[in-house]
Amino acid sequence: MATPTALLERLVDQRVQLRLKDSREMSGRLLGLDDHMNLVLDDVEETSTAGARRLGRVLVRGSNVISLTAPNGPSPKRT
Amino acid sequence: MATPTALLERLVDQRVQLRLKDSREMSGRLLGLDDHMNLVLDDVEETSTAGARRLGRVLVRGSNVISLTAPNGPSPKRT
Amino acid sequence: MATPTALLERLVDQRVQLRLKDSREMSGRLLGLDDHMNLVLDDVEETSTAGARRLGRVLVRGSNVISLTAPNGPSPKRT
Amino acid sequence: MATPTALLERLVDQRVQLRLKDSREMSGRLLGLDDHMNLVLDDVEETSTAGARRLGRVLVRGSNVISLTAPNGPSPKRT
Amino acid sequence: MATPTALLERLVDQRVQLRLKDSREMSGRLLGLDDHMNLVLDDVEETSTAGARRLGRVLVRGSNVISLTAPNGPSPKRT
Amino acid sequence: MATPTALLERLVDQRVQLRLKDSREMSGRLLGLDDHMNLVLDDVEETSTAGARRLGRVLVRGSNVISLTAPNGPSPKRT
Amino acid sequence: MATPTALLERLVDQRVQLRLKDSREMSGRLLGLDDHMNLVLDDVEETSTAGARRLGRVLVRGSNVISLTAPNGPSPKRT
Repeated sequence: MATPTALLERLVDQRVQLRLKDSREMSGRLLGLDDHMNLVLDDVEETSTAGARRLGRVLVRGSNVISLTAPNGPSPKRT
Repeated sequence: MATPTALLERLVDQRVQLRLKDSREMSGRLLGLDDHMNLVLDDVEETSTAGARRLGRVLVRGSNVISLTAPNGPSPKRT
Repeated sequence: MATPTALLERLVDQRVQLRLKDSREMSGRLLGLDDHMNLVLDDVEETSTAGARRLGRVLVRGSNVISLTAPNGPSPKRT
Repeated sequence: MATPTALLERLVDQRVQLRLKDSREMSGRLLGLDDHMNLVLDDVEETSTAGARRLGRVLVRGSNVISLTAPNGPSPKRT
Repeated sequence: MATPTALLERLVDQRVQLRLKDSREMSGRLLGLDDHMNLVLDDVEETSTAGARRLGRVLVRGSNVISLTAPNGPSPKRT
Repeated sequence: MATPTALLERLVDQRVQLRLKDSREMSGRLLGLDDHMNLVLDDVEETSTAGARRLGRVLVRGSNVISLTAPNGPSPKRT
Repeated sequence: MATPTALLERLVDQRVQLRLKDSREMSGRLLGLDDHMNLVLDDVEETSTAGARRLGRVLVRGSNVISLTAPNGPSPKRT
C-alpha cells in the first residue's frame, strides 16, 4: 500500500500540481512538508481565472489543499 | 459489521469513485490511505462541469471527500 | 437514554436515510460505522435536484452528514 | 449555574426545537445525546422553506446544530 | 487581565446579546456555559431579518457564536 | 522573535482593531484573551456596511478573527 | 527537506506576502509565528479589491492563511 505520507516524501524534489480550495492551481517543485500537509514549493507558477503568475517559493497551508497531482511521479513502493 | 476503515483497506487496488466538496468527481484505482481518509489514487479521471480530464496519480486530502463509491467492490467481511 | 452511538449500532443491517451537507439524500442499508460517524451503506439510492441514481456500496464521510433518519427503526433500549 | 450538558440531560423525554445550519428546523422528543451534542430525537417534524414533513426517529449530528429551544422546559437546577 | 472565561462567569444571571454566524442576534439572561462556549440563555428574544420572536430558554452551540455583548456588564476584575 | 501570544499580552489595555470573518471590524481596548484567541474588548466601536455602532464590552470568539491590528502598539521585545 | 516550520523560522525579519481566505493579500516583515501558523507582521500593506492601505503591525490568525510567498527568501537548508 502507498500511504499518502510515503507518496509525498517520495515526491520531494519533483514537480507537483496542487488544487486549492479557492479555485487556484499551483505547480512547483516540492521542497518539504509536515504532518498537517503544509507544503513548501519552489519555482511556483499559479493559475487562476485571473491568469497565470510566477511566485517563487511558497508555503501552502495544508487545510487549503484539495488534491495534489504527480503526473510523472515515481512508482509506488511495493511492500 | 463492516467498518469504514476495513472497507477502505479491502478496496486497495480496486477502482473507486470519489465525490469531492468542490463538486468534482474522480475515479481511480485506490493505492493507499491513512487515518484522516487522505487517499492516493492512480489512473485518475476527473469529471466536473468543465468536462473530464486524466490526471495520473493523485493524493486527495480526506477533508474534501464527501463519499466514496465502490460499485463492484468486494463483499463485506462477515464476523 | 438512547445515545447516538447506541442507536446507530442497533440500526446496522437496516435501511436508513441520510441528509448530506451538499443537499443530497441517500438511502441504503447501514453496514457499518466508526466513531467519526463515517458510515458504510449498501444498496444506496441517491436523490438530488439532478434526480435519483443507484450507487451500490458507499462510504460517507461523517463530517458531511447532517442527519440520519430511521423511519421504521427499532425501539430505543430502555435502561 | 445551568450548564449546557445539565440542561440537555434534564430535557430528555421532552419536546425540543432545533435550528440547523442548513436553515431547517426540527421539533421532536429528545431521546438521547452525547458529548459532541449529537442528538437522537423521536416523532420529528421538520420545517423548511419546502414545507413541513414528518420524519420519525432522527439522529442529528451536533456540528449542524445552531440552537436548541425548550419553550416549556424544566426550571434550571438551583445550586 | 479579564479572561474570556472569567468575564462569562461574572455575566451569569445578567442579560447579554449574542451575534450568531447565521446573522441572527439573540438577547437573553445567561444561565450557564461550558468550555466550548456553549451557552444557556433564558427569556430569549431573537432578532433576524425576518423580525423578532420570543424563544424562552435556548441552548446555543458555541461554534455558532461570533460575539457576546454585555452593554451593562460588571467591571473587569482588577488583579 | 515576537510570538503572537507575546504580542497580544503586551497589547492588553491598548486599543486594537479586529477584522472578523463576517466582514465587520471592531476597535476597542483589549482587556483579556485566552489560548483560543478569544478576546475581551472594552469601549468597542463596530463598523460594517450597515454603519457604525457602539457596543460597550464585547467578547469575540477567536475562531471569527481574521486579523488584529495594533497601529500604535509597543515595539516587539528584542531577545 | 525544507519543512514548513523551518522555512518560516528562516523568514523571520524578511518581507513575506500572505494570501488570506477573504481574498485579501498582505505584505509585511515577518516578526514571529507559532505552531498554529499565527503570524505577526510589521509594516503591513494590505491589498484587496477595495484598494491598498497601510496597517502597521498585524497579527494574522493562521486559520485564515492560504499561502505565504517569499519571493526573495533564503535558500532552503540542505541536509
